[in-house]
Amino acid sequence: MLGISDEEFLRGDVPMTKREVRIVTIANAQLAEDAVVYDIGAGTGSLTIEAAAQVPHGHVYAIERKDEAVKLIRANLAHFGVEERVTVLAKEAPDGIEKLPPCDAVLIGGSGSHLADIIDAVTKKLHDGGRIVLNCITLQTIAEALTYFRAHAKTYDYEVVQLQVNRLRQLGPYDMAKAENPIYIVTAKKK
Amino acid sequence: MLGISDEEFLRGDVPMTKREVRIVTIANAQLAEDAVVYDIGAGTGSLTIEAAAQVPHGHVYAIERKDEAVKLIRANLAHFGVEERVTVLAKEAPDGIEKLPPCDAVLIGGSGSHLADIIDAVTKKLHDGGRIVLNCITLQTIAEALTYFRAHAKTYDYEVVQLQVNRLRQLGPYDMAKAENPIYIVTAKKK
Amino acid sequence: MLGISDEEFLRGDVPMTKREVRIVTIANAQLAEDAVVYDIGAGTGSLTIEAAAQVPHGHVYAIERKDEAVKLIRANLAHFGVEERVTVLAKEAPDGIEKLPPCDAVLIGGSGSHLADIIDAVTKKLHDGGRIVLNCITLQTIAEALTYFRAHAKTYDYEVVQLQVNRLRQLGPYDMAKAENPIYIVTAKKK
Amino acid sequence: MLGISDEEFLRGDVPMTKREVRIVTIANAQLAEDAVVYDIGAGTGSLTIEAAAQVPHGHVYAIERKDEAVKLIRANLAHFGVEERVTVLAKEAPDGIEKLPPCDAVLIGGSGSHLADIIDAVTKKLHDGGRIVLNCITLQTIAEALTYFRAHAKTYDYEVVQLQVNRLRQLGPYDMAKAENPIYIVTAKKK
Repeated sequence: MLGISDEEFLRGDVPMTKREVRIVTIANAQLAEDAVVYDIGAGTGSLTIEAAAQVPHGHVYAIERKDEAVKLIRANLAHFGVEERVTVLAKEAPDGIEKLPPCDAVLIGGSGSHLADIIDAVTKKLHDGGRIVLNCITLQTIAEALTYFRAHAKTYDYEVVQLQVNRLRQLGPYDMAKAENPIYIVTAKKK
Repeated sequence: MLGISDEEFLRGDVPMTKREVRIVTIANAQLAEDAVVYDIGAGTGSLTIEAAAQVPHGHVYAIERKDEAVKLIRANLAHFGVEERVTVLAKEAPDGIEKLPPCDAVLIGGSGSHLADIIDAVTKKLHDGGRIVLNCITLQTIAEALTYFRAHAKTYDYEVVQLQVNRLRQLGPYDMAKAENPIYIVTAKKK
Repeated sequence: MLGISDEEFLRGDVPMTKREVRIVTIANAQLAEDAVVYDIGAGTGSLTIEAAAQVPHGHVYAIERKDEAVKLIRANLAHFGVEERVTVLAKEAPDGIEKLPPCDAVLIGGSGSHLADIIDAVTKKLHDGGRIVLNCITLQTIAEALTYFRAHAKTYDYEVVQLQVNRLRQLGPYDMAKAENPIYIVTAKKK
Repeated sequence: MLGISDEEFLRGDVPMTKREVRIVTIANAQLAEDAVVYDIGAGTGSLTIEAAAQVPHGHVYAIERKDEAVKLIRANLAHFGVEERVTVLAKEAPDGIEKLPPCDAVLIGGSGSHLADIIDAVTKKLHDGGRIVLNCITLQTIAEALTYFRAHAKTYDYEVVQLQVNRLRQLGPYDMAKAENPIYIVTAKKK
């Protein structure tokens, strides 16, 4: 099932995609049970774990450059018991993408400063009709993504939402809104 | 799969829960494949359809008081081919709930002015560990829900998020944010 | 001028109304240069200071129950040099309101659990055409305010906005949105 | 006073900056009573009118390329009785800026596709310590503004907020949130 609680993940100090963002991201990827998925800039592995739960007959390739995060991903895979369905690559994308098998969906949570190179690389791997779902927390990244997908309108259709979540905290007799940082979710469908 | 496009539903003039809100609502219901689900104030049936897709071995009971909406629900069930998994009741909840079989999850999209009566009625039907997911578009409804679940803290734990979605529209060379109305999503878990 | 930077205030550990919320709150109060203003639940005094700047020929009465906050208000009055235009009452409203002179506007940033009593008390003091501007950070407070002003529709017209501010932080080559907690601003005009 | 109701403006079919956005925009411009202000892409003139109210001993130059909007601005100036303090230029900025007197603040509500040229032109006119306040409704415009001000960090410091307003509508016994489109407000201070 989709939508694991944030508290269930091992996190350390690595930033984690929050629950509602994960839910919409995974839903936008439209994963079939046998889908092959890349999770690029996998961070804590929270999207990897959620994707793995959706693809019992598929596989997830998690790419992450930071050692601390790679350790967390492996720990979370063990914690959730989905090690068999996931391969972790300790690489800085687009390194490592070339040798992966073709895929049905690509999740991009972190791109360093290589967004265009990464999308170029995964485009060669992504089946027609497959989807890229990109989470952008900086204005520069969403701007670069829009520029890319507009320049590649022959290959991709895209849609974007900005998602803002306020979570009510229960403090004595009161419920008080605590804002989470907004995020842009870009979903590009390969034609 | 979860997250049907808004455009795929037959809608008429009936207000419809928007895609990202449906996705989070269904994810929060944590539906098993054989779950029995009530959808109260089903409107266009968009949540009913999404829920039916999650419960291939379960059943959804859609309760809706307005004739126009009931017709839309039936049309959408046929359109998506899930008639066998759904029963439509043309009733004003809590009417009709008493005779339904026990359930695993309850979606409440519309409650007229009967929210407390509806939750009282479904509480008798809901399995322990089951969830109520309530979408509130008015301040009065979220306030009433908070009052209810605080008064029934022995029976329910609850969490609330306010979800706001801005959808980028592509206008010539520009992407411009178009705001959708925010909504409170209350998820109450029966102890 | 309206819109002092948050950093210019002495703050301690007392929660402070953020800049954009202060700006809209003060604008909604529609203060004339000789206005008499109450600031109830004045906290750090940030709204008091902004109001005092708008009323060079008027006066602001700041009511605050907590000692630590009262000290901060006094320190901020000295810091901004507006002590002459402000009187601080170390009271828990509605205590202390009865003896104040009539007023043109009332700002309510904190109401403890006495909101209805406070509005009852200030209604006796507020000139016709005067405004109450209420900042609500809990769902219970906005719900209570709506209930109050609906029950007193002969005396007040009200309008409400929910304001959400995301502030971009400059991190190296990136601008990243940092969400501030949303707030409801109720503006009630006495008929 | 700042914060005229949206309903008080003559609007036609020209898009108008909404009230809370106007309030924060004008506050960010930090206008002294004798300030000279440019309003570029003045649209309906709503920002021009609000600015004129803040500068009883100053002047506002409103630049607008569309005939229909220029007519609306003139009609609004007459309606609010501030014609003496405002000069309207029916030009497409940066055309017309060169001949204007030096200024203390620049409001940019619309820039067509000439944003960098416009900021280059006004930089020659803006006093040190003066401010540019830019309202961006497209992702491309905010991205271009960030690029510009980062490239001109020797001349400008900038701050950005994204402002989202939900306005409660009173429908029978309910208050229902109606979202307004979010906007980025960039405030750049000339060093």
